[in-house]
Amino acid sequence: MLQEQIQKHLDSLTKPPGSLGRLEELALCVGLIQQTASPQIVSKAMLIFCANHGVAEEGVSAYPSEVTRQMMANFQAGGAAINVLCRHFGIEPVIVDAGVENPTRNFTREPAMTREEALAAIELGRSYVQARAQTADIIGAGEMGIANSTAAAALLCAFTGLDPSEAAGRGTGLDDAGLERKTAALRKALALHRPDPTDAIAVLAALGGREIAAIVGLILGAHEHRRIVMLDGFISCSAALVARAIRPASLDNVLFAHRSAERGHSLMLDALGARPLLDLDMRLGEGTGAALAIALVEASVRLYREMATFSSAGVSEKAHRENRAR
Amino acid sequence: MLQEQIQKHLDSLTKPPGSLGRLEELALCVGLIQQTASPQIVSKAMLIFCANHGVAEEGVSAYPSEVTRQMMANFQAGGAAINVLCRHFGIEPVIVDAGVENPTRNFTREPAMTREEALAAIELGRSYVQARAQTADIIGAGEMGIANSTAAAALLCAFTGLDPSEAAGRGTGLDDAGLERKTAALRKALALHRPDPTDAIAVLAALGGREIAAIVGLILGAHEHRRIVMLDGFISCSAALVARAIRPASLDNVLFAHRSAERGHSLMLDALGARPLLDLDMRLGEGTGAALAIALVEASVRLYREMATFSSAGVSEKAHRENRAR
Repeated sequence: MLQEQIQKHLDSLTKPPGSLGRLEELALCVGLIQQTASPQIVSKAMLIFCANHGVAEEGVSAYPSEVTRQMMANFQAGGAAINVLCRHFGIEPVIVDAGVENPTRNFTREPAMTREEALAAIELGRSYVQARAQTADIIGAGEMGIANSTAAAALLCAFTGLDPSEAAGRGTGLDDAGLERKTAALRKALALHRPDPTDAIAVLAALGGREIAAIVGLILGAHEHRRIVMLDGFISCSAALVARAIRPASLDNVLFAHRSAERGHSLMLDALGARPLLDLDMRLGEGTGAALAIALVEASVRLYREMATFSSAGVSEKAHRENRAR
Repeated sequence: MLQEQIQKHLDSLTKPPGSLGRLEELALCVGLIQQTASPQIVSKAMLIFCANHGVAEEGVSAYPSEVTRQMMANFQAGGAAINVLCRHFGIEPVIVDAGVENPTRNFTREPAMTREEALAAIELGRSYVQARAQTADIIGAGEMGIANSTAAAALLCAFTGLDPSEAAGRGTGLDDAGLERKTAALRKALALHRPDPTDAIAVLAALGGREIAAIVGLILGAHEHRRIVMLDGFISCSAALVARAIRPASLDNVLFAHRSAERGHSLMLDALGARPLLDLDMRLGEGTGAALAIALVEASVRLYREMATFSSAGVSEKAHRENRAR
């Protein structure tokens, strides 16, 4: 009934029905999440979870682990790409240390986290949503963590059965030898842990990262608080695989920002049944794709709220209706 | 040399090289058009050219011709989709009557315009760019004109040799019978005028519309004044076919906003060698896709200008460089 009410309003606006395409879908989606025929996006936040990864020891990233800390400082100083985009689109960036000085263990040798550590990291993400639930209508999922595309690829393999050779990509720019090391590390980890996708927390603990777990918590918390989550690329979508396994309905509150250039992201989106909004060959993470997509969602809601209707603007409707009236 | 200078700056920013994908391409493109390594987008305008079409008599649109005038009034009152998007993204809308009360002639029976009329409409578009050249860094091409997707499809056929059955789409929402009338009108017009694509003005006069001609002038004028044009969908891209035939280099200043859901637009983009930025199933026109894409261009330039560099932020570069130094 709410859906029909929203659709009726969309069709009353001065445009051919459906001609705003996915922007109309977005306005409808926001209305359904907010449970109102007057959806609104007033304030926007971007949670940027930063953490380090023991598996970086395996030489799976083009950059050294200290870059995670350096980039977190860059976020705090306002100099990173995500800062610029947040300023441009009026999104509040919230930088969260999810484990920069407390890396996960090297999951080619032992589980990345204990079950308790994984749950604590989920709780961290959830607590941030709880704190923001009154002030942010839409929350972007950003992240930074050297080697975290290896963790995300491991989760992709664990939840879908994909082979590491399909799931591993070049991340921040690995060369061929690095990509081989990454694929080998994934094979070793999967053989060691034999992840059981029906125990999502165990999979996350074995192969995930603290920032990924925090985004799982962000998704679960957003569902509890009826807030919209905008996922970014390969890393944040790997959290959606975990969140779906824990609580399938939590994905109802999730929007998918873009198709990353990271190999494996298209397969991951397919596994999630997701059709992202943008496809701009981006592969930076941080929430950069999410920031752009949040601007689209905000635009869609403004269109819904501010456009004139056929009757208010005195615009004639479709000709065949007129003909019928004659 | 300028290109290398811009690329060098892009690669010095705190992100893996190329990881902002098409946003990096956009910043480079703006720099090359503005001929500076410090590109800037300060002010943005959207020219919305409105005109009527004699071919509407053939029953080729789902809406009656008076909607053009009614929608122009809606633009002036601020109630249309393009107004909302312009407000949202800080773009100045400029509504131009290019022939609302002065429709072209029905091109299934005679040329839509005389050569002089076509040239005057081009000049109208060019004069608006000239007037805005000092104040708008980027100019969107918007349009409104009942039956103008028939004119655009006719131009597509004339310049590419495509069959009307491939070029004709449902526009604002034609039913099957309407689509048949539209295809038949195109066949009749092409048989009558036998357009010669080497005489672009003659093709435009025979089959175009005044708003399309004005967008041709906008493209030519932007090239003369080193301004960026953001084309929208099927209608404004048909003007690019004409502009290219008149002055191929004029497309250097043109960006393509989105892939419209209008059938024929993908073929038109292929003919133009264009890869648009967005694909959101939109098919409204007015400049709505262009407005969204202008926001992306602006974001790309802010990233270029405002991001910290590896050295200014104290962030380590790629690990293999470090290893080499050891």
